[in-house]
Amino acid sequence: MESTDIILDLFLVLIAAKVAGEAFERLRQPAVLGEIIAGIILGPFLLGLLTDTDVLGALAEVGVIFLLFTVGLHTRVSDMVRVGGSAVAVGILGALVPLALGWGIMAALGRATLESVFVGTAMMATSVGITARVLADLGVLNREASRVIIGAAVIDDIVGLTALAILSGIAAGRLSYLSIAITAVESVAFIAFAIFIARRAADRFSALTEKVWRRNPGFIGPILVCLGLSVLAEYIGLAAIIGAFLAGMVFAESDRRARLDRAIEPLYDLFVPFFFVMIGVRVAPGAVNASILVLALVITVAAILSKLFACRFAAWGLARREAWIVGVGMSPRGEVGLIVAAIGLTRGVIGHDLYAIVVLMSLLTTFFAPPVLRRLIRPRVPAAAEQVAAASEADEHAPPC
Amino acid sequence: MESTDIILDLFLVLIAAKVAGEAFERLRQPAVLGEIIAGIILGPFLLGLLTDTDVLGALAEVGVIFLLFTVGLHTRVSDMVRVGGSAVAVGILGALVPLALGWGIMAALGRATLESVFVGTAMMATSVGITARVLADLGVLNREASRVIIGAAVIDDIVGLTALAILSGIAAGRLSYLSIAITAVESVAFIAFAIFIARRAADRFSALTEKVWRRNPGFIGPILVCLGLSVLAEYIGLAAIIGAFLAGMVFAESDRRARLDRAIEPLYDLFVPFFFVMIGVRVAPGAVNASILVLALVITVAAILSKLFACRFAAWGLARREAWIVGVGMSPRGEVGLIVAAIGLTRGVIGHDLYAIVVLMSLLTTFFAPPVLRRLIRPRVPAAAEQVAAASEADEHAPPC
Repeated sequence: MESTDIILDLFLVLIAAKVAGEAFERLRQPAVLGEIIAGIILGPFLLGLLTDTDVLGALAEVGVIFLLFTVGLHTRVSDMVRVGGSAVAVGILGALVPLALGWGIMAALGRATLESVFVGTAMMATSVGITARVLADLGVLNREASRVIIGAAVIDDIVGLTALAILSGIAAGRLSYLSIAITAVESVAFIAFAIFIARRAADRFSALTEKVWRRNPGFIGPILVCLGLSVLAEYIGLAAIIGAFLAGMVFAESDRRARLDRAIEPLYDLFVPFFFVMIGVRVAPGAVNASILVLALVITVAAILSKLFACRFAAWGLARREAWIVGVGMSPRGEVGLIVAAIGLTRGVIGHDLYAIVVLMSLLTTFFAPPVLRRLIRPRVPAAAEQVAAASEADEHAPPC
Repeated sequence: MESTDIILDLFLVLIAAKVAGEAFERLRQPAVLGEIIAGIILGPFLLGLLTDTDVLGALAEVGVIFLLFTVGLHTRVSDMVRVGGSAVAVGILGALVPLALGWGIMAALGRATLESVFVGTAMMATSVGITARVLADLGVLNREASRVIIGAAVIDDIVGLTALAILSGIAAGRLSYLSIAITAVESVAFIAFAIFIARRAADRFSALTEKVWRRNPGFIGPILVCLGLSVLAEYIGLAAIIGAFLAGMVFAESDRRARLDRAIEPLYDLFVPFFFVMIGVRVAPGAVNASILVLALVITVAAILSKLFACRFAAWGLARREAWIVGVGMSPRGEVGLIVAAIGLTRGVIGHDLYAIVVLMSLLTTFFAPPVLRRLIRPRVPAAAEQVAAASEADEHAPPC
């Protein structure tokens, strides 16, 4: 009622996301790419109809929280334990090889050590959001490769965020081994708490909230757990999305999962597109020249190849196609790369040239993965079979009512 | 991922709203009062944990949009036509009598005409949000009195917003009869469009979106209609919530209503509390002294009595209890009064003293109505019967699955 902006923005983002997403699906491309492109078109880069406001940023954050919560809901601890070895290997190798390669390339070009390490750090990250969305849209979140990717991406995030914390500490001139050790211990304790303790308490907690809150049984309680663990994750220095993901896992084996899944669906449909549209909106115009573009392409190719082969190799225990799916699925840097870039710029670790390079690398790796992933997971089939597949996929998404 | 604030704010607002709302329900008070009080406690008035940020304001606006959309979903055009005469009488008389009384009191106290008219204008409004929420929580949105209240509140809003537009024009020194006439014609055309044309097209539109969007059948289409009509309403000078309400009415008689109702429920549960918590958060500390308090109480009593008797009288066609329900249900000024106050202050029509008075009047009328309404609709009954009623109410809210 106060300003027309927020409702108009909601309308624009939703209609653009849904139209572009649907168009991309019809072209057999992932809907998420359509949403990012819709953001680039509507944003300051082209039309200037949307800008990166606090409100849209907040809705994007709510979107990614619901996305990771949904991913967590489809991730059983028992399945994670089964792929645990592969996930740890993929996560660690998939973080260290890109770090080394990025650092090496920049050092070879004569850049300062701090800058070089920073570019390497940005290349460590994995945007689990992008890949998880593609996997969810294809209805294969329960596939072995999907579980390895998501488990590895969580480990990756922890390694990457720890590296970022260290770098920020160096940049700020303050750093103690003690504070690094504390962050690491807190992270492990938090994950262990969510997986081993919170999970056991989940059904009891749900039963309690259902008794206390007569309305919305089985919905508000889990949402509060999701937000609470997200806040806790940020508090101890992890990303909020890790908390949301673990909260989803807490309820993955609960009796209430089906009902919770159904309640989360409208929230997912409404808010997740904001996250992807805003990735597009944040692409700023200008500040890119030929030499930066060349270096960005080199770094992008290095980022893709290092992740692809390191992860494919680390996933040697899986079938061949699954191992390649893991390699491709781990390669998009997406919003994680963009966040690292923003932190580097604001803290003065990198200049505008390296910022543009890291941003371009994040976007290009993000555009590379989804179509390849889709082709690997669902090879081109005759039109009739595709329709059957689409129909059965629709069934998977229909509320089990 | 960027800042901990938004997720923390979401968590705080939700947990406070749900705890306070539940506590009030157990005390047989409406949950919505608990939510407003939770906002006052968490806001700058007491603890200062929440402030009136852009982001929380936006979430509150999203909440009130979903609230009015839900109310519209339960409002059939045929029912509205049946209560049309009463609603028009209640709406117009319920706007003019408080206007005259407020204007008269302030003029008698020697205030300038513009100021006096302004206080009267703030007293015209009806916060359909508050009453609709109480009616929805009691599961009586389909009762005759409820339909009269909601219809009258819409008419009231149109009359009140037109008055506000005129006043703002006078305050800004620009006003033409032509522009007033255009606004009035646009309003009527908009409502007629929504009710007579959009409604007929609703099922065809839903079928189309279901064909185009393979996912979320019957959900994204109506949400876009809701946001689109809200934007359109603001564009022609009405409140966005009128558009959302009409959008709900568009789908009230659709085959898809049950499914839409089910999809809207999590959005309602998650976002509507933001609107009411933020009413509380916006209560600022300080700036109230004894003489202002006395005048505020006088104005509040005048606001309640004028609305109560004018509307009760205008609803003479209804049964006695129903007519009183209409009178009480029309009396809360809620956010509409607060918005009028904010506009008056920022445009320099009123000073801080009258602002405080209008704000207090809005809040006190808002606290008055819900408990009285609840008592009128659900007279105190023996505990056993109350439990049966609560159980049947729970059934009404359960998804028809």
